[in-house]
Amino acid sequence: MVSEVIPDIIVSRLPRYLQALQRMHQEGQSTTSSKELGGRLGYTAAQIRKDLSQFGEFGKQGTGYSIPFLVSQIQTILRIDRMWDILLVGAGSLGHAIANYNGFTNRGFRIAMIVDNDPDKIGKKIGGFVVQDIKNLKNQIPGSGIKIAMLTVPASVAQVVAEDLLQVGIQAILNYAPVPLSLPENIYVEYIDPLIQLQHMTYYIT
Amino acid sequence: MVSEVIPDIIVSRLPRYLQALQRMHQEGQSTTSSKELGGRLGYTAAQIRKDLSQFGEFGKQGTGYSIPFLVSQIQTILRIDRMWDILLVGAGSLGHAIANYNGFTNRGFRIAMIVDNDPDKIGKKIGGFVVQDIKNLKNQIPGSGIKIAMLTVPASVAQVVAEDLLQVGIQAILNYAPVPLSLPENIYVEYIDPLIQLQHMTYYIT
Repeated sequence: MVSEVIPDIIVSRLPRYLQALQRMHQEGQSTTSSKELGGRLGYTAAQIRKDLSQFGEFGKQGTGYSIPFLVSQIQTILRIDRMWDILLVGAGSLGHAIANYNGFTNRGFRIAMIVDNDPDKIGKKIGGFVVQDIKNLKNQIPGSGIKIAMLTVPASVAQVVAEDLLQVGIQAILNYAPVPLSLPENIYVEYIDPLIQLQHMTYYIT
Repeated sequence: MVSEVIPDIIVSRLPRYLQALQRMHQEGQSTTSSKELGGRLGYTAAQIRKDLSQFGEFGKQGTGYSIPFLVSQIQTILRIDRMWDILLVGAGSLGHAIANYNGFTNRGFRIAMIVDNDPDKIGKKIGGFVVQDIKNLKNQIPGSGIKIAMLTVPASVAQVVAEDLLQVGIQAILNYAPVPLSLPENIYVEYIDPLIQLQHMTYYIT
């Protein structure tokens, strides 16, 4: 059912489809159309149908899509029909905020371990976790099943820390440091960059 | 030169074009092609040419685009050829992290004011700012030129605080709280949601 090579740009849109569908479901809706889903997200109905057709036949013209079915299919495609453990690297103020973030609950992810290199932070408790020494990564990560890291270290050390993460088997990094990481292609990096969104908003301010 | 109605989905891609172009420039490059730019961002060359053509004629087939010229044009279109002051709402751990974030420098934005409603936080200094009482917004924001807010309050109060921001003339909110805001169409809202990016990455983990 799933074709071999799906363009990343389509994969990148699926979480937004999922989010919109989950909100519709919370609002009590059980079916939707490509037109309605597109309208919520700023895409044409044709774009939505084209994207979803990459993954199989989820609905029919005229009858629309079953929201619970589509949600479950997208969750399976994105492999979030399971729980993913996350390594949080950096126990500064941003690390604190993430450790206490309640947006992960029931959405397929949980913080599993927090590390830092600062002796003043190691051993302290944040968000229910004892901050561990970053030196322990090579003993604790391989075999732990943890493959995703959130990186909240200062920009000046983000690259070297990311290289250490690669060494212990981390495959995906969500980078909060405002610096591009240069890593081999087999490690997947995304950036949280508020500038991108601020720059989008200024277009509309009067 | 600028057409009347540019689809938001195209506007939303411009900050990413800008970021990629600025990185190329930092790496010493002075021209690029729609193919190269598209390759960096996961779009086809045709998509890039189509998007940029909405805003005028920036390059020619064969000779490519001048990077400094394109950077300057996109900055003008997005209206970030000036400095935007930001109101930071919420002086918790995330507010701390943002107040100390150095990714804004020279990128068109700066924190101008921090507010909270917690008596323990009001009057304390974070990131060089004295945290002010959120009750002062109605005296201080109108006429200040501040039109953008970053919202880092708990999810449970994000909606009421956002409504207060609307009342004092804030036009754009970057919402870090993991909750959708329901606001009139004349206020522009974007979300920082790490889940969207985590869900994209899990597709690739082996």
